[in-house]
Amino acid sequence: MQKEIRLFSPATVANVACGFDVLGFCLDTIGDEMVIRTTEAKGIKITKIEGYDLPYEAEKNVAGVSALAMYNALDPDCGFEIEIYKNIKPGSGIGSSSASAAGSVYGMNVLLGSPLDFTALTNFAMKGEALASQCEHADNLAPAIFGGFTLVKSAKPLKILELPTPDDLYATLIHPQIEIKTSESRALLPKEIPLDHAITQWANVGSLVHALHTSDYALIKDALHDVVIEPHRKQLIPHFDAVKTAVLKASALGCAISGSGPSIFALSKGESTAKDVENAMRNVYANTAIDFETYVSKINTEGIKKIN
Amino acid sequence: MQKEIRLFSPATVANVACGFDVLGFCLDTIGDEMVIRTTEAKGIKITKIEGYDLPYEAEKNVAGVSALAMYNALDPDCGFEIEIYKNIKPGSGIGSSSASAAGSVYGMNVLLGSPLDFTALTNFAMKGEALASQCEHADNLAPAIFGGFTLVKSAKPLKILELPTPDDLYATLIHPQIEIKTSESRALLPKEIPLDHAITQWANVGSLVHALHTSDYALIKDALHDVVIEPHRKQLIPHFDAVKTAVLKASALGCAISGSGPSIFALSKGESTAKDVENAMRNVYANTAIDFETYVSKINTEGIKKIN
Repeated sequence: MQKEIRLFSPATVANVACGFDVLGFCLDTIGDEMVIRTTEAKGIKITKIEGYDLPYEAEKNVAGVSALAMYNALDPDCGFEIEIYKNIKPGSGIGSSSASAAGSVYGMNVLLGSPLDFTALTNFAMKGEALASQCEHADNLAPAIFGGFTLVKSAKPLKILELPTPDDLYATLIHPQIEIKTSESRALLPKEIPLDHAITQWANVGSLVHALHTSDYALIKDALHDVVIEPHRKQLIPHFDAVKTAVLKASALGCAISGSGPSIFALSKGESTAKDVENAMRNVYANTAIDFETYVSKINTEGIKKIN
Repeated sequence: MQKEIRLFSPATVANVACGFDVLGFCLDTIGDEMVIRTTEAKGIKITKIEGYDLPYEAEKNVAGVSALAMYNALDPDCGFEIEIYKNIKPGSGIGSSSASAAGSVYGMNVLLGSPLDFTALTNFAMKGEALASQCEHADNLAPAIFGGFTLVKSAKPLKILELPTPDDLYATLIHPQIEIKTSESRALLPKEIPLDHAITQWANVGSLVHALHTSDYALIKDALHDVVIEPHRKQLIPHFDAVKTAVLKASALGCAISGSGPSIFALSKGESTAKDVENAMRNVYANTAIDFETYVSKINTEGIKKIN
C-alpha cells in the first residue's frame, strides 16, 4: 500500500458573477501543497504547517476536521499524518480553507485505495469548510476536488455537476491585502430580492452554462453579470468599480467578486488578454496604499492532483 | 416570387418549471394553421379566421399587429393577406397568441425572400404578443419560431439561445377549460422573493441547461422544480397538486404550470411514459365537473414550418 502522497491543492473562485452559491472554477497557478502519510498509530495528526499560522489540533484545523469526519466514518486500520504548506492566504476569497479541507480527504482516499467518489469526498470536506465559514457549502470545494467549472445543484443531498471548460479561458485575480469579516460580508446579503433581478440572474446562469458547453466566449461575456449580490458587497472592496472598468477596457470577458472577497477575478479569452487584464488591475491598485497580489491562471480542469 | 405559404404554427410551453420568464419549448401535435399571401394592394388584411372568434381588424389582432410592425419597418412593394385557422384556444396557457403573432411574420419573411433572421422576426412578433398580454415578452415566441428549447437571455436587447433537445423527450399537457384572468395571474406574482429560493431556482436553471446538453434525463427530473412562482399560482388551477402527484407516480420527469396556466405540462422520457402520464392526468380530471383536453407531443425541434 502507498504510504505517502504529496498533493497540489488548488485555489478556487466561487460564485462566478451570476452563480452566487452554486458556480465555481479551479485555478492552477496558486494552491497549497500537502503531504498525507499513513501511520501505524491510529487517529489524525497534523505534523507540520508552513506559510501561515494555523492550529495544529485536528479538531480546530479545517484539514483536520474534514480528515476526522472521513476517518470516523471509514474507521480504517491505520492513522494519518498531515503536513500543510499553505500558499493561499486565509481570508483571501479564493478558497483557502477549501484547499485545506479538500486536500486531507483527497489524500487519505488515495492512500486507502480510493474507496470514495468525489461527491463523498466533498461531503466530508464540507465538515472542515464549516469550521472556517460557519456553514457547510461546497461552492469552493467542488471545483477544487472535481476541477474545471462546477455547479452545486444542491447541498442536501449534495449533487455536483461538472461543466465543460472552454480551451482558451483564463482567469486573472487581484487580492487586495485587506480583511473582510465574514460576519460583515454576510450581513450585507439581502434576505429578499426583487423578482425581476432574480430572473435576470437565472437567465445569466442558464446562459453561462450554455456558453461553457458551446465555447461561446461572447456569450460568456454577456452572461458574467451579478445584479443580486455585487451591488451590496462591492462596497467592502476598495476600488472595485475602478478595477472592473479597467479590466473590461482591457478586453476581459467579465469581472466580479471572487467568493465573498476581497479578491476580484476576471475571465479572459487567451493568456495574452489575461495578462493585459492583470496589468490593468495592478495599475488601479498601484496608486493606492493597499498591498496586493495578482495571479493569472488557466482554468485548471484537473483539480487537486498528486505531485512529486 | 412565391405568392402564398401555408404554415403550421405550433403551440409552446413557457416558463418550464424553474425557468420563469426565460425558458420555453415547442410542441408538434397542436398548433394553428395560417396562410399568408402577397397582394398587389399594399397593407395587411386578415381575410379569414376560423376556430375562434377573433377581430379581423389588423390593429386589433395579434397576427395583424406583428405583421404591421414588420410591414411598416420593411415597407415592401406588395401587401399581404392572412388567413388564420386557430386550433389553440386563446387563454389556454400554451402560446395561442404567440402562434398567431409568430406565424404572420414568419410567413411574410419567407414570401419576401427571408431578409430577416429569427431574432428579428421574434422582435416584430413581440409587438403582436404585447397586444394579448400587455407586455412584450418572447418566452412563447422564441420556441415557436426557433423550435426546440429556447432560453431568452434578455428581452432588451433581444437575445435568444437555442438549447439542445434530448431525442426521447416528450411533453404531456392537460388544458382544463377554465378561464384565468391575466390580471389575476399577474397579481399573484411576488414582487420580492427570498434569496435562498432564488438560489435554488438558478441552480435548477443551470442544471436543466446542462441536462439538455448532456441528455441526462435523471438530471432533467432533478431540475424541473419551481419554488418561486408555482406556490403562488397553482391555487388558480383546480386539482393542480393532484395532477402533479399522479403524473410523478406515472414516472413523469416533472410537472409544472404551462405559461401562466391553466394548462399543466409534464415531461417524460419516451412516448409510452408520456401516454401513461396523459392517462394519469385524465383520471384526475375525469372525476370533476371541469371539461379538459389532453395532448402528447414530442418536443418539436423545427418550430413553425411550411406545410402543403
